[in-house]
Amino acid sequence: MNFTISTSVLLNNLLISQKALSTKTPAPYLQGIKLEASQNEIVLITSNSDISIKISIKDESLKIESGGEVLIPGKFFVEILRKLEGDSVELSVIDNNILRIIAGESDVTLNLLNVDDYPELEFPINDDPIKIDSKLMKSIIKQTTFATSAIENRPILTGVNIRVEGEKLSAIATDSFRLSQKMITIPKNQDNMNVVIPGRSLDELFKIQELNLDEILIHLNHKSILFEYGNVLFQSRLLEGNFPETSRLIPTEFPVIIKFNKDKLYTAIERASLLSSKEGSSSIVKLNLKSDNVVEITSNSPELGKVTEKVYPLDNAVGMPIKIAFSSKYFMDALKTFNSGEIYVKFTGEIRPFVIEGDDDPGVIQLILPVRTE
Amino acid sequence: MNFTISTSVLLNNLLISQKALSTKTPAPYLQGIKLEASQNEIVLITSNSDISIKISIKDESLKIESGGEVLIPGKFFVEILRKLEGDSVELSVIDNNILRIIAGESDVTLNLLNVDDYPELEFPINDDPIKIDSKLMKSIIKQTTFATSAIENRPILTGVNIRVEGEKLSAIATDSFRLSQKMITIPKNQDNMNVVIPGRSLDELFKIQELNLDEILIHLNHKSILFEYGNVLFQSRLLEGNFPETSRLIPTEFPVIIKFNKDKLYTAIERASLLSSKEGSSSIVKLNLKSDNVVEITSNSPELGKVTEKVYPLDNAVGMPIKIAFSSKYFMDALKTFNSGEIYVKFTGEIRPFVIEGDDDPGVIQLILPVRTE
Repeated sequence: MNFTISTSVLLNNLLISQKALSTKTPAPYLQGIKLEASQNEIVLITSNSDISIKISIKDESLKIESGGEVLIPGKFFVEILRKLEGDSVELSVIDNNILRIIAGESDVTLNLLNVDDYPELEFPINDDPIKIDSKLMKSIIKQTTFATSAIENRPILTGVNIRVEGEKLSAIATDSFRLSQKMITIPKNQDNMNVVIPGRSLDELFKIQELNLDEILIHLNHKSILFEYGNVLFQSRLLEGNFPETSRLIPTEFPVIIKFNKDKLYTAIERASLLSSKEGSSSIVKLNLKSDNVVEITSNSPELGKVTEKVYPLDNAVGMPIKIAFSSKYFMDALKTFNSGEIYVKFTGEIRPFVIEGDDDPGVIQLILPVRTE
Repeated sequence: MNFTISTSVLLNNLLISQKALSTKTPAPYLQGIKLEASQNEIVLITSNSDISIKISIKDESLKIESGGEVLIPGKFFVEILRKLEGDSVELSVIDNNILRIIAGESDVTLNLLNVDDYPELEFPINDDPIKIDSKLMKSIIKQTTFATSAIENRPILTGVNIRVEGEKLSAIATDSFRLSQKMITIPKNQDNMNVVIPGRSLDELFKIQELNLDEILIHLNHKSILFEYGNVLFQSRLLEGNFPETSRLIPTEFPVIIKFNKDKLYTAIERASLLSSKEGSSSIVKLNLKSDNVVEITSNSPELGKVTEKVYPLDNAVGMPIKIAFSSKYFMDALKTFNSGEIYVKFTGEIRPFVIEGDDDPGVIQLILPVRTE
């Protein structure tokens, strides 16, 4: 194997590739990046227990002298490429099991891993993938994944449930204390779909979406889902099991609706959270709509002190006075996902879940369970 | 106590003040900021085992209704001030032991600590302090403190030795594997001085020097040293014991002198350090001046691979070929302290300390002990 390529082209692809690199693994070969050079392209493959990434590079800077496939210690390869000077880099195999990297005034050799140890990975492409705008995909991830459960006692809740029914795509995440839902319309598709994708996989997918392409193709297979993103194939395992039916959890009637400036509400809750009582690891903050149409955000830590914040609703609030307590983190997490500068907080009752929505975020519902106090 | 002050003025001073705040301490009062309000100024005092800071604030925004002194939980006070909105903030004591903070739409109360628990701290000012340009003080710290010992088995080496003899000020730090020395000329002073200041104290002093003042006054006392920096008094304890006599360790004759572009040498060593054998926690890299006047920087890790970097001396190197091994971290740490774009590396022999100097860094010597290999 021997080829030359633009250093920055190789590096930029390696930086995507390494998202699927295992760092701690009982299988040392998963710490490797498999590199295949054929006649006119090179392919990078990485894999860990959740995701696998396959990247095809066809670049005008690429000059392949001879093909081959090798398994390169991933962490060191990426570190070296990051630091190399010189516009182009030459990679070749010497002595059968050593990769030689030449760029600028640097001459580096890296001992290779045994490529025969690497599993054969499939990246199955369907004829009829779901097509989705990549910005929309990014917003789906941003607006739902944060609400997945971080603890593993109900593994299904560590994932995001994505369903396609006709022209309706819905994404739902819940850790049973809060719920995020985004519904969008997509071009009608052949097949319906109902899968649960690990939240961690979606977080990694989000990170590689700096690529700024227009469209992402989604290929659904039996036990995996594959996102095709330009020259990048990003495959995630699916979670097995039934995602809970959540539609009945979302209230539909709201006797109290308050419209806020999002940033003013956020900073008020943030300040209140500095001196608050704790419920487990959550800071508990209260929202109190008073009869004179002023909202107070308050907290009280017997040891530390108290915070009282006044926030003025943008319109007259609808409904009767209400007092509700909640985790400040959950509320702030939810607010952060909105593009809307003005948001609605909708209440059903003091011990019933409440909902946040925004005009510029159609199809998005953030639901939070209040905390009982006293 | 009751006063109003510009929020940003108070915050900016608190951010300096908190550098001396204890976070983990058996003495809870040291987690407090002592605030004294008198007729026309407020004073902030903080202290931990190494340093004490006293800041006097006389600002045109300051309106003092009534004076007093309180001890405020430091971490929470700073956090709240960081987040407050509103140009000015009102602080008052209510119910004897509660601080009330009002700004914008926020109304916060903080339970106070008992100010009677706080020790009486002295910040003794001399009539005839040493005056030093504050940029120069900053460069002294930057160019020496990093070479202090991080381990406590010889406590005296965790400090920087600062000596004033007539018009000569010298600062020296060594962890016994490397040594940094900076010598400058100062206006002649009454008293000579020979003290060892904890490296950590100087690191903190460095951080608050964003204040960008022209001059710093140094007041030396029996067991402490006090840096007067505008409205800030920064006091550090001194280390007891004798700092080793280091002047004989620095070679004076150098059969081999090589002039380098600093950045080229730095990046070559950095790349070599990626695949290097380890000596304890150090990465060992070799420098090899070859007979054809080319310098090779090399490393070799039997498990990982090898790096060979060519670096070309700026002038013909003086002296015979030489091969020397060293800790890449020590070499990079030393290079980082130079303002000079071109530096000289001066060798006495393959197992003798070598020295780095730069034309734009007069009075600075960075010395490194080589590592024996094979």
